Amino acid sequence: MNNNNYLPQVPIAAIATALAPSALAVIRTSGSLSIELVSSVFSRSKALLQAQGNTTLYGWIVDGDEKIDEVILAVYRAPKSFTGENMVEIFCHGGTSPVLSVFNLLLRSGFRQAERGEFSFRAFLNGKTDLTRAEAVREIIESKTGESRSRAAGRLSGNLEEQLTSIKHALIHTLGTIEVEIEYPEDEETIADAFDTTELKETIVLLKKLSSSWKCEKLYQEGARIILSGKTNAGKSSLFNALLKEERAIVSDVHGTTRDWIESYVSFDGIPARLFDTAGLRETQDLVEKRGVEMTYDLSRDADIVLYLLDSRYEVTNNDVSFLEALVTRSTTHVPSIVVFTKSDLKQADIEAAKPLFKSCNISQYVSVCSKTGDGIHELGNAVKTILLQGSSTERDQAGLGSERQKKSVDEAVHCLEHALFVYEKDYTLDAVVQDIEDALEALSSITGEVTPEDVLGSIFANFCVGK
Amino acid sequence: MNNNNYLPQVPIAAIATALAPSALAVIRTSGSLSIELVSSVFSRSKALLQAQGNTTLYGWIVDGDEKIDEVILAVYRAPKSFTGENMVEIFCHGGTSPVLSVFNLLLRSGFRQAERGEFSFRAFLNGKTDLTRAEAVREIIESKTGESRSRAAGRLSGNLEEQLTSIKHALIHTLGTIEVEIEYPEDEETIADAFDTTELKETIVLLKKLSSSWKCEKLYQEGARIILSGKTNAGKSSLFNALLKEERAIVSDVHGTTRDWIESYVSFDGIPARLFDTAGLRETQDLVEKRGVEMTYDLSRDADIVLYLLDSRYEVTNNDVSFLEALVTRSTTHVPSIVVFTKSDLKQADIEAAKPLFKSCNISQYVSVCSKTGDGIHELGNAVKTILLQGSSTERDQAGLGSERQKKSVDEAVHCLEHALFVYEKDYTLDAVVQDIEDALEALSSITGEVTPEDVLGSIFANFCVGK
Repeated sequence: MNNNNYLPQVPIAAIATALAPSALAVIRTSGSLSIELVSSVFSRSKALLQAQGNTTLYGWIVDGDEKIDEVILAVYRAPKSFTGENMVEIFCHGGTSPVLSVFNLLLRSGFRQAERGEFSFRAFLNGKTDLTRAEAVREIIESKTGESRSRAAGRLSGNLEEQLTSIKHALIHTLGTIEVEIEYPEDEETIADAFDTTELKETIVLLKKLSSSWKCEKLYQEGARIILSGKTNAGKSSLFNALLKEERAIVSDVHGTTRDWIESYVSFDGIPARLFDTAGLRETQDLVEKRGVEMTYDLSRDADIVLYLLDSRYEVTNNDVSFLEALVTRSTTHVPSIVVFTKSDLKQADIEAAKPLFKSCNISQYVSVCSKTGDGIHELGNAVKTILLQGSSTERDQAGLGSERQKKSVDEAVHCLEHALFVYEKDYTLDAVVQDIEDALEALSSITGEVTPEDVLGSIFANFCVGK
Repeated sequence: MNNNNYLPQVPIAAIATALAPSALAVIRTSGSLSIELVSSVFSRSKALLQAQGNTTLYGWIVDGDEKIDEVILAVYRAPKSFTGENMVEIFCHGGTSPVLSVFNLLLRSGFRQAERGEFSFRAFLNGKTDLTRAEAVREIIESKTGESRSRAAGRLSGNLEEQLTSIKHALIHTLGTIEVEIEYPEDEETIADAFDTTELKETIVLLKKLSSSWKCEKLYQEGARIILSGKTNAGKSSLFNALLKEERAIVSDVHGTTRDWIESYVSFDGIPARLFDTAGLRETQDLVEKRGVEMTYDLSRDADIVLYLLDSRYEVTNNDVSFLEALVTRSTTHVPSIVVFTKSDLKQADIEAAKPLFKSCNISQYVSVCSKTGDGIHELGNAVKTILLQGSSTERDQAGLGSERQKKSVDEAVHCLEHALFVYEKDYTLDAVVQDIEDALEALSSITGEVTPEDVLGSIFANFCVGK
């Protein structure tokens, strides 16, 4: 959204459903004149003008004498609407032609085409939503699994905003005690332990926990990249299919040729993951095949986990070790990797004997599977999930962050508060501590989108003794 | 729809919008218990149960304690709804995950997944729509141009049903006069010219006009197939692009390779057309190219028009004539074809000199164009439109037919009425005439979906003299 284009109340319209043949489609309008403008192209103009909020009306969208489409209108009157403005939602038939005919007629009748997110932006400006809820709407629409949707729904219902508010209240309380100490430094016996750093330290712990939730939430939002690799005939395609069967395939999509890779979305117990079945690795002179091998290296560069497959029947070779090393070594760090022994029905691999060989590769797990019978597939799924969620706060009772932006602000608040502790413990003036805490509050307020100087003032006086 | 599965009032649910990321989606429910069942998964259960018809409610779809999605519900109470039953429409966020989560919860809560067209079928059974309007809904959704949509909207608003009703009334009147003649044959002076065949003949004219409208309506619904053909370098791709530019491209989609054909949807003044840019024709030994030429012949087999392109700078050859002959000859009939002289900026073709050469091909039109400057492109578009609409009733003041089914019934009615005239003029018994007219009425009634014996009865007595 380009804010410069924004004029509140200007009537805007947008097609809110996907433009493909379907029974129904929704065209959304908002703005102080939206009801009047829609009434100019509605068969029951007067009924619409007189309609109460939260009611529906049947009729036709008409262009002069021409009937465009038979519709239901939902009428909302300010401030009881999504945007907080007057709104009319038009439910028309879902084909490209009726939807575009109605929409173009609206544009000719005085509506401006809404910009991306402009309805939510108006809702925010009119105090109908905060930024965490607004971001959650985007999240919920793009969510790939039920678990992803559920986490976004938590934020949409306000659990993050509530947690931030409670953290801010604690900070405002802390600030209040300091301000009193600054203004009335002589009143030592009542204030003395009114400001101790315990509250501040607790807040920092809470914020750090919140910050660490992002790794997990991001995983549920964006999904993980998992690469299946190994030498030709190590059983990659069979395992790919076995995983698609065990873990529910979300979208199955084939890219490139079998020489390149096959990609599919699966849900690992709610975590969306893009699974890549790559070309077989082997030292080769063949140009096309060489390209496939290069592609595997490229893919693994951005991977969250590399699965390296070995046929249980054969010895681990030096080639295997150097292939895997090349796959998982990323400058100074390693991509987490799992060594998967396949075809366990034919021979059980000696995992303990293999471990020393892969010492240089920093392997996270060793698993033995049989794609044919499904043995070990579930365990492999669990191993993947464990690695993906490592070092991340995954508790569902606490709200998690919903965007990189939010995490940056939380980290900034932590930074400010740690600085506050530092200056306080070094015995600098309390003014510097106040400044740090105010900066932290501003960072947190930017997450929900409010500015909060009144909060601070209010809290100071609330901390006063009565009558003083 | 499988009628055997149909139990009126059973609560049904369906996703009514396209399943793709978008702001909103609509899930539709209907059935006597639909409001109660939705209330079992709605955060404001009591408010929903008490909600009046034609109102909207804000709240959350919940699965026990879990919040699924924030929604608006539109509540309709029987008989004031699309189906004539109680209905709740759920407007949720438009991602795959929220939509499927809500929908699956509804299925677990007692709704059955609706079959194709089941909402419309219920609407029809409950007398909320007739079959011509129901068919128009499907048409409007699938309409490819504004003109196609507009014609369907006419039927959806009932213009066809009204015209059929008026024709049926005329037939019922005719029938009434005959029945009186049968019952009171002695009352000759009052009846004598009460039944003359004029009314019947007029009805037949109207029905034939209605029947002939289908060719044109079908064209607007399904679109035409137009093949661009000609020798390599005759200027096919340039004309293809010039036509896409002049006539608005609807959907541009590339199939196969340039060796096969390129296909695009264009609108010729409202008539949707699939335009095929085919491989260049030339006698060839090359296998791949041969396949391209074969493909051109295959495509032209189902074509509505073949455009054969000739470079204006060169003489027409025997090869050209035999290529075009092979393209347009379809058993005993010919595909309508237009010979298009291209590159008119470089040389003006001598059209009159070319005509005798193509005598065997039965060419409909000769046009001269320049794709670069656009000269003649508009004229070519007009020539195409004229050929496509040939022999079809295109008047917009009269309703047109919306489906093959409707045309079959109209033709059957015409057949019955012509037989009635035949038996009357051959002086057979009036009973046979009555039977024919009743058969015609039944055929016409099947178009709207009603059965009408009472109409006939009612009309007979209405034709009686008062007190008799």
